[in-house]
Amino acid sequence: MDAPLATLFDFLRFPSISTSSRHAADTRACGGWLARLLGDNGFQAELWETPGQPVVFAQGPQVEGAPTLLVYGHYDVQPVDPLALWETQPFEPALRDGKIWARGATDNKGQILAHVLGAIQVLRERGELPVNLKFLVEGEEEIGSVNLPALLREKRAELACDVIAVSDTGMVAPDTPTFGYGLRGIACLEFTVRGPKGDLHSGVYGGGVLNPATVAARLIASLHDDNWRVAIPGFYDGVREVQPWEHEAFARLADGDAEMRRHAGAAPAGEAGRSTWERLGARPTAEVNGLWGGYQGEGSKTVLPAEAHAKLSFRLVPGQDPQRILELAAAHLREHCPAEVTLEIHPGHTGPSYFTDPHSRWGKAAQQALRATFPGKDIAFVLEGGSIPIVATMKEVLGAEVLLLGLALPDAQIHAPNENFPVGNFEAGIRLHGELLRAVGEA
Amino acid sequence: MDAPLATLFDFLRFPSISTSSRHAADTRACGGWLARLLGDNGFQAELWETPGQPVVFAQGPQVEGAPTLLVYGHYDVQPVDPLALWETQPFEPALRDGKIWARGATDNKGQILAHVLGAIQVLRERGELPVNLKFLVEGEEEIGSVNLPALLREKRAELACDVIAVSDTGMVAPDTPTFGYGLRGIACLEFTVRGPKGDLHSGVYGGGVLNPATVAARLIASLHDDNWRVAIPGFYDGVREVQPWEHEAFARLADGDAEMRRHAGAAPAGEAGRSTWERLGARPTAEVNGLWGGYQGEGSKTVLPAEAHAKLSFRLVPGQDPQRILELAAAHLREHCPAEVTLEIHPGHTGPSYFTDPHSRWGKAAQQALRATFPGKDIAFVLEGGSIPIVATMKEVLGAEVLLLGLALPDAQIHAPNENFPVGNFEAGIRLHGELLRAVGEA
Repeated sequence: MDAPLATLFDFLRFPSISTSSRHAADTRACGGWLARLLGDNGFQAELWETPGQPVVFAQGPQVEGAPTLLVYGHYDVQPVDPLALWETQPFEPALRDGKIWARGATDNKGQILAHVLGAIQVLRERGELPVNLKFLVEGEEEIGSVNLPALLREKRAELACDVIAVSDTGMVAPDTPTFGYGLRGIACLEFTVRGPKGDLHSGVYGGGVLNPATVAARLIASLHDDNWRVAIPGFYDGVREVQPWEHEAFARLADGDAEMRRHAGAAPAGEAGRSTWERLGARPTAEVNGLWGGYQGEGSKTVLPAEAHAKLSFRLVPGQDPQRILELAAAHLREHCPAEVTLEIHPGHTGPSYFTDPHSRWGKAAQQALRATFPGKDIAFVLEGGSIPIVATMKEVLGAEVLLLGLALPDAQIHAPNENFPVGNFEAGIRLHGELLRAVGEA
Repeated sequence: MDAPLATLFDFLRFPSISTSSRHAADTRACGGWLARLLGDNGFQAELWETPGQPVVFAQGPQVEGAPTLLVYGHYDVQPVDPLALWETQPFEPALRDGKIWARGATDNKGQILAHVLGAIQVLRERGELPVNLKFLVEGEEEIGSVNLPALLREKRAELACDVIAVSDTGMVAPDTPTFGYGLRGIACLEFTVRGPKGDLHSGVYGGGVLNPATVAARLIASLHDDNWRVAIPGFYDGVREVQPWEHEAFARLADGDAEMRRHAGAAPAGEAGRSTWERLGARPTAEVNGLWGGYQGEGSKTVLPAEAHAKLSFRLVPGQDPQRILELAAAHLREHCPAEVTLEIHPGHTGPSYFTDPHSRWGKAAQQALRATFPGKDIAFVLEGGSIPIVATMKEVLGAEVLLLGLALPDAQIHAPNENFPVGNFEAGIRLHGELLRAVGEA
């Protein structure tokens, strides 16, 4: 096994599950390991304490007059349940079919370590770096980066930079250089419909009072029109429209409908008049994440339930303010709720969307790095459907664009059993980092 | 304590929970006890074996030329959970505030024993009965009378009768003679909407495929129009309309809206243009008994669920065939389900509605008995919202009308902790049986 791979395996062996208090020490040890790796290889590395897990911060040698690149990533991972579904142990990395199998292989240890090892390699070969390079690697991304925004504000001076690179998003297919130029935002809420004081006999009382489960279903049904457009008044106000160059870029991607069938195992469908790639990245959504009320057991129990519940999340695009969307959604639900039941709405977490122009100065540098890493390949320009709120926060606090240079394949099984990362993507990531240093230095 | 009450307490002490295999012997012993009571007091009593609990059958002395009255009831009871909510033990009957507190006090031991003791009393006082009297008391009503229909067919000759009396329904208020002239039928189904092959990340896939929970909610929403009428085509075909005399009878009942507020703790609401009493008894319903999909735990989990489920039940009125309603409902759901998801429909149990004319020969006899039992009180004519499928089956198999002379008060807590039965209702039940014998004999 070559040195980079052996190093990655060491990194992957830490069960750095940030959501588990049982693994708090393992997670901290993992951050310490990464700081030492950087410190031992020419970087000034330190651990910044937070109320939770420490943040690894490292700086390369200062390069007078050169731009500053900040690379963000995370060393914590998702839980591993259900363990029985793993073919090999999640924290005993294995090499099989040209892939690395382990929790965190793709998300995010494999990707962030490629950047780190790429930088160490350049520094070793040349004795210097073409840019001022900083690493910011947190240990709480999988629990919502809870302590990072405050730290960004506190350490704004140390973190000052011209551009930020993040490899924590998707690559549309193997060997396809992928430039993520946007992320959707998010706004969550939960609602409860309450009717009778307790569950009622559906025969004795059915027809006499409203059924909270029926009302909850009607409220959910009211969220979309018959064209699967979100029917909340004002929801689409200010939404950024996809530009002609983006339509052209989407058309060069793999067939989105076939991708849905393959990866989701479901027929593509959604907002009328919008392509699948457009719906996935450029259009906002209203989704039910959970829904429950009444009897769920075997057979039948003819109750008229006293209450029913739903968890909703909205994915947002540029032009939509998450708080404003929650207000519009709450007003819409209240408007549609019959007076004979009560409606409780609990707003949940929110995060802004992110958008950057791939044709900007730094965008062009990223394109140049991608082309150099994958010679002869067309760059895929994609809008990520998911949300990484910290990306928008970094842009806001540090005032720098974020380049999303994802290496995660669609079948990487992130957050699921049998997470994996092709060795080829790991090696490409190391090369990509070197090319990015060069391109940013020349931009 | 007087003799009838002491006898009822003995009856109530049997934990005859038919759904619990642990209580199978107790239930059987309870049936044996009742058969002996009848056998020791002038009746020819026997236990008819079934694949489950035995049925108590008893006949009084033959009365040449007199009509035959069959009284139906059940000696089994509901489970007692949650036990902690009982103020006194469910199978240690207690007398408190003029009421008998025990599981089965109202449903159905108190009511059926009132008939039995009423008959024994008449026989003791007069040495004969005015009618041919038969008792049919089963031990599996609370588990759906699973073995009774076959037994009714097998024993049709022994059970031959002119009219049937059942006290297993409600009394609208204390001291209010109540004549139930109908029961709603029932038809149940469960459906599952399936989309993706597994739960998906609602950011990565949201907007690309349909959300089964959203589709399930829209299917439920499609069941009613904006006036809370059931929107399934053909659902109301042939439905019996309430007659002017019934509207007058409903108007003499307590304020239905106030009753809903008091007993259900909810604002009355439902099908537009129909009174609350009409909606509760004379109009069919479509109710959600259970609904679930996706994440129900604390906080948020932004999944796009692979599937969602609902349990529905329809309460039916004369003119509606349960099987036909299930077919119409299934066709409606299929019609409204988008092609991009799959819909599985599992039909559940059904039971026909029941209706009898209170102004028929036997209906008039029942009215006479009620008036004699509650002198000076107006009779409440009610349609029961619940379903007792065995009532329609008895009418069908035995070809006799069923008189529903309920003694259960709205706060009887049947099927719930602290079930109770006023001593006054028990005594009225004993008198009612005597008056019923007289009235049927003279009809």
